[in-house]
Amino acid sequence: MLKPTSSITEEHAALPATDATGIAVVGLGYWGPNLLRVLGDNADAEVRWICDLDRDRLAKYRRRHPSARVTTRLDRVLSDPDVEAVIIATPVHTHYNLAAQVLVAGKHVFVEKPLAPSSELADDLAELASERDRILMCGHTFVYSPPVRAVKRMIEAGTLGDIYFISSSRVNLGLHQRDVSVIWDLGPHDFSILLYWLSELPTTVRAVGRDSIVKGIADVAFVTMTFASGIVANVELSWLAPSKLRRTVLVGSERMVIYDDGASEPVRLFDRGVVYHDPETFGEYHLSYRSGDILSPKIESYEPLGLELSDFISAIRTDQRMEFHTALARSVVRIVEAADRSLRAGGREVALTDHADISDQLFARRGLALA
Amino acid sequence: MLKPTSSITEEHAALPATDATGIAVVGLGYWGPNLLRVLGDNADAEVRWICDLDRDRLAKYRRRHPSARVTTRLDRVLSDPDVEAVIIATPVHTHYNLAAQVLVAGKHVFVEKPLAPSSELADDLAELASERDRILMCGHTFVYSPPVRAVKRMIEAGTLGDIYFISSSRVNLGLHQRDVSVIWDLGPHDFSILLYWLSELPTTVRAVGRDSIVKGIADVAFVTMTFASGIVANVELSWLAPSKLRRTVLVGSERMVIYDDGASEPVRLFDRGVVYHDPETFGEYHLSYRSGDILSPKIESYEPLGLELSDFISAIRTDQRMEFHTALARSVVRIVEAADRSLRAGGREVALTDHADISDQLFARRGLALA
Amino acid sequence: MLKPTSSITEEHAALPATDATGIAVVGLGYWGPNLLRVLGDNADAEVRWICDLDRDRLAKYRRRHPSARVTTRLDRVLSDPDVEAVIIATPVHTHYNLAAQVLVAGKHVFVEKPLAPSSELADDLAELASERDRILMCGHTFVYSPPVRAVKRMIEAGTLGDIYFISSSRVNLGLHQRDVSVIWDLGPHDFSILLYWLSELPTTVRAVGRDSIVKGIADVAFVTMTFASGIVANVELSWLAPSKLRRTVLVGSERMVIYDDGASEPVRLFDRGVVYHDPETFGEYHLSYRSGDILSPKIESYEPLGLELSDFISAIRTDQRMEFHTALARSVVRIVEAADRSLRAGGREVALTDHADISDQLFARRGLALA
Amino acid sequence: MLKPTSSITEEHAALPATDATGIAVVGLGYWGPNLLRVLGDNADAEVRWICDLDRDRLAKYRRRHPSARVTTRLDRVLSDPDVEAVIIATPVHTHYNLAAQVLVAGKHVFVEKPLAPSSELADDLAELASERDRILMCGHTFVYSPPVRAVKRMIEAGTLGDIYFISSSRVNLGLHQRDVSVIWDLGPHDFSILLYWLSELPTTVRAVGRDSIVKGIADVAFVTMTFASGIVANVELSWLAPSKLRRTVLVGSERMVIYDDGASEPVRLFDRGVVYHDPETFGEYHLSYRSGDILSPKIESYEPLGLELSDFISAIRTDQRMEFHTALARSVVRIVEAADRSLRAGGREVALTDHADISDQLFARRGLALA
Repeated sequence: MLKPTSSITEEHAALPATDATGIAVVGLGYWGPNLLRVLGDNADAEVRWICDLDRDRLAKYRRRHPSARVTTRLDRVLSDPDVEAVIIATPVHTHYNLAAQVLVAGKHVFVEKPLAPSSELADDLAELASERDRILMCGHTFVYSPPVRAVKRMIEAGTLGDIYFISSSRVNLGLHQRDVSVIWDLGPHDFSILLYWLSELPTTVRAVGRDSIVKGIADVAFVTMTFASGIVANVELSWLAPSKLRRTVLVGSERMVIYDDGASEPVRLFDRGVVYHDPETFGEYHLSYRSGDILSPKIESYEPLGLELSDFISAIRTDQRMEFHTALARSVVRIVEAADRSLRAGGREVALTDHADISDQLFARRGLALA
Repeated sequence: MLKPTSSITEEHAALPATDATGIAVVGLGYWGPNLLRVLGDNADAEVRWICDLDRDRLAKYRRRHPSARVTTRLDRVLSDPDVEAVIIATPVHTHYNLAAQVLVAGKHVFVEKPLAPSSELADDLAELASERDRILMCGHTFVYSPPVRAVKRMIEAGTLGDIYFISSSRVNLGLHQRDVSVIWDLGPHDFSILLYWLSELPTTVRAVGRDSIVKGIADVAFVTMTFASGIVANVELSWLAPSKLRRTVLVGSERMVIYDDGASEPVRLFDRGVVYHDPETFGEYHLSYRSGDILSPKIESYEPLGLELSDFISAIRTDQRMEFHTALARSVVRIVEAADRSLRAGGREVALTDHADISDQLFARRGLALA
Repeated sequence: MLKPTSSITEEHAALPATDATGIAVVGLGYWGPNLLRVLGDNADAEVRWICDLDRDRLAKYRRRHPSARVTTRLDRVLSDPDVEAVIIATPVHTHYNLAAQVLVAGKHVFVEKPLAPSSELADDLAELASERDRILMCGHTFVYSPPVRAVKRMIEAGTLGDIYFISSSRVNLGLHQRDVSVIWDLGPHDFSILLYWLSELPTTVRAVGRDSIVKGIADVAFVTMTFASGIVANVELSWLAPSKLRRTVLVGSERMVIYDDGASEPVRLFDRGVVYHDPETFGEYHLSYRSGDILSPKIESYEPLGLELSDFISAIRTDQRMEFHTALARSVVRIVEAADRSLRAGGREVALTDHADISDQLFARRGLALA
Repeated sequence: MLKPTSSITEEHAALPATDATGIAVVGLGYWGPNLLRVLGDNADAEVRWICDLDRDRLAKYRRRHPSARVTTRLDRVLSDPDVEAVIIATPVHTHYNLAAQVLVAGKHVFVEKPLAPSSELADDLAELASERDRILMCGHTFVYSPPVRAVKRMIEAGTLGDIYFISSSRVNLGLHQRDVSVIWDLGPHDFSILLYWLSELPTTVRAVGRDSIVKGIADVAFVTMTFASGIVANVELSWLAPSKLRRTVLVGSERMVIYDDGASEPVRLFDRGVVYHDPETFGEYHLSYRSGDILSPKIESYEPLGLELSDFISAIRTDQRMEFHTALARSVVRIVEAADRSLRAGGREVALTDHADISDQLFARRGLALA
């Protein structure tokens, strides 16, 4: 039978297993429907509650998820003993209160990014999760994207050698957020990727930008970070750009990589570099330039959100705590907060206040086998 | 007769006119031979002297320019009353001394970029040129490049509206300079272009970078500038990159431009932007995004160096002083110096010390008809 | 209120108007579900029946379209007086029989492309439709795609001048069809686009290809067509290619166009050409080459299938017969048939048998205002 | 010492060795000066004569090559016993007469492409060269270009598997030739490359085109060839195109290659293909699609013309006859002639008349180690 590779989306959602993990989804705005759809495909999960303040939205999604109950009240969700975990996809300023309630109720929680509007509140949530021995995970989905993982494997395998610097652009025309700067909106993507790749918090952050359109809301920012290892990273973030660009260049001592999220070849590995030769007879050093093959490795194709939620549910079922993810989320908030502070101070250097536990947890992921 | 557009280079050099301007070229390193070649095509110029410390080079170029005399001694050049102008293409640290001697000898001078290794010395040269009423011009050739001029015309015509910010990358693999950072090497290109376009000195400069290969010589730098008009500019400079990139994005209130120096379409004009609507009934503002045509205008094709030297020689013959070019060169040195200082201070903000005369001369070019 | 351009798909399907046109959809394979989805968004249409031989599929789509009835028997559909039109998305070899039954039952019919497996059967259907005074339309959706329409407008406006030739590539890796050559599979796309643009049937067709993988099923073909107007067209079709390409170049006497279906700028207009100057003094002609701006016009963004079905339903409601579309579909089958015959004869020229009515109907669309 | 990779062209030409091979260059039009320049860099060659009908040109190049003598008369060149070989870069219609004189005079000859204006004359030259035991080589320089050689190595190494088909485009805006079609002008490039790669003459050729601008001179042609091995090749040639393109796609059973002559990555190897699985249980075959890494191998950087002339001179000095090159040149003329004939006959198939000696010599190069 002729059976070519199918590009047709599988239509039949997985039926929940009898011992499926009970999940509630809170928030039906932009991202919530995606979470619902992906959970519907996960046989280990059962969406038991959908919660939102808007009754029309509830009615609409009830039809699509007939087995779930709907409510405008979080307490009804939290009092259901069959709910093991709650996924929060509400506006940022509500993250702390909702997640704290979920943890206090003894349930695991998955919060959309960024985890909280300040590092203090993010730390509080982490402490609460630790006290209650519950998972606190944050939706940094790029950490699950195939090209980002491919680059991580290259870094861990030493393919790039020592990383000298990273230069990144994440720009597009729109959409302006009405209450936060472009750093809070787009920064978490790049910062989570950098933390995942480097397993290291920056020590200093600087940001210079401009509120071109709406006074008080920066819509372009150039963020520069330095790391204790010597790495320098420059991240350009903007809602104003002639064309969409999501491109990161990593320059290492052995090889260089371009990760271009929208390209048909999202990862390109350049066998290029400079070799420093120590002084010999005449007491002068010598440099040679190396320029070899360029490789576009085949990148797997799957939906990152599916793997991320599957990881969350699997952690619940196997009693893991996802400390790396908690540390990652706290670190992202730290960088965003520092960058935003620098931006408001006209580009002044802001040192990052480290917590030993964060670094330990970030660093623990270096060199480990990856999911 | 079939006469299609010829791509064959014209072989016959122009013969100097009988009243041609006498020129001397000092320095036969990387750039000097290009200057000689281009001067050979200019009917208004006559190369009377070629000067270099290396006798082999002199012998080689004497053969190619049989009408020119060669020497290792600048004083012989300066004592020739038929030499009206001297073109200096020697290492940067010699620029000041050589150019000063030329001016003291009462001759016009054209110095390769950057003009001098410090703003103080650059200012001294400018003062000397002013006292002796001679031209002091510096080889910022990009100011003569067709795509840079095309963008200038767009800016002056108001096509872009108010410029919000500029983001630029000038990166390549190599060549490391042995005595100066990448800021001194590549920075003058971008800084001269920005000054030419904006007719405005930045007020603050910050640079963060790294000396990845040779200790003490930064090979990557992220330079951020702010301008009194509100414009923010970010310039990435690097000798370490997977592939060559010379790309500048200008984001304006009306349109956006990508200038990509190596591309087959070096200037692309995007009819895109955001419109801010003031609050109306409900007291909330409203944004609309506009996305129209993209235009790659036809860009003229000529060698910028030819036009630049022709401009210099024409200024000599018509008794002009090229104040804009002197001011531009002094400003470039100011920015390079400030950026290098910031880099060494770990990214600290450095304010630019303005001289009223520089700003006046820069600003004078705004809105003027262009050559 | 902050209201940026939304990229979120509108979720609420239009509710059918009370006088909505009753539609049946036959065939739930690859394309049928798309037709159902799009019909669900059309307020003027009501899907009354879904018909397929597979009961599982019927069950699945009944859930999604609760107001429609499902059946495995076409006669039940045809006997429903409230069904005004039937949309057929079944395998090609069934098109003729099913469409004929629909027309005989006095209903309008929309058939997926290609209309029929031979020009004879396609002509029969057209005759039947004409006799019964019903619409016979075929799903050549590219005719409704925004970039194809943009190019049509340029042609009609004379922007390109006289078209000299057209060169097209439609290649990808897979999917091999099991019973027909790549000409039957991919050819209808290009042929329908060419017919729409040129309003003219080719007079000769040649095709050379190869059955590289499966004996007897050509998976690559180079099709060359000549037109009475002098236009030459070359179309490369392949299921074997290193990367997907859907690119058509039109070379006209005044301007040239590249239409690249997958590109971010799908239409690019080049102000380039050659001017022939008649012989003058020396009796020899002279050519000059012209190379001006390149324009990427803004292309509208909508789903072509939506507009196509809306056009079909609107034609039913306003009692139009869509003769151009019938003629287009018959012409496409003619070209496919001729190309396939040439391919099997090793590239021999095949002349197209014209029917006056087809040409008249095709030609009628030239210069007309477009939807 | 800092010694980075130099991009500065080496200026000093090689001095001829005392036993250098004496060469004459005939024709100083477009290509002759390049030949002179390259010969000047070859220490094994000494240009003894420069011959052209235009005395101004002779005067100009005498200055540049002071050791060469100049003349308007070929007989003076041929009577010089120190001239071992003559390089002919004159218009095509003169190739036969000039080359024949050279061979009759007992000297080796290198003729610019195409070798002769008909296959009969090309065969005559080959016979003459064979009788006189002299080298007859033709300037199919692409055979010496680094990316073309890289693809040849891949083919010989079996990297592509069996080649199914080849699709090529060589298009640009201009320059129209005044006396020959685009097939005679651009075709030799593609045809020589295909012959070099495949070591096989096509058996049939078809060409359809149009004389869009100048009546009688086709400026666009689509040439289709079939080979006894089953390979199909389509070559698009045009002087009318919106942008320059020199791109060849090779589709093999194991891998695919894109060779793009103007691209920064001129050779890209795609690990993609289709696997046919024989029928098993249900008696139906099965296809699987494979899509792996993409590799841009580092391509050497040298001037093909330099290697080509070096090969010619080396063959003279080591007494080789370059039979492959003679056969290649004769084969190119055969294909051009056949394609032009097909074009004039409206695309009729033209069979290639093979000579056993040509095929043997072409085939001999298959699998051999390459220079």
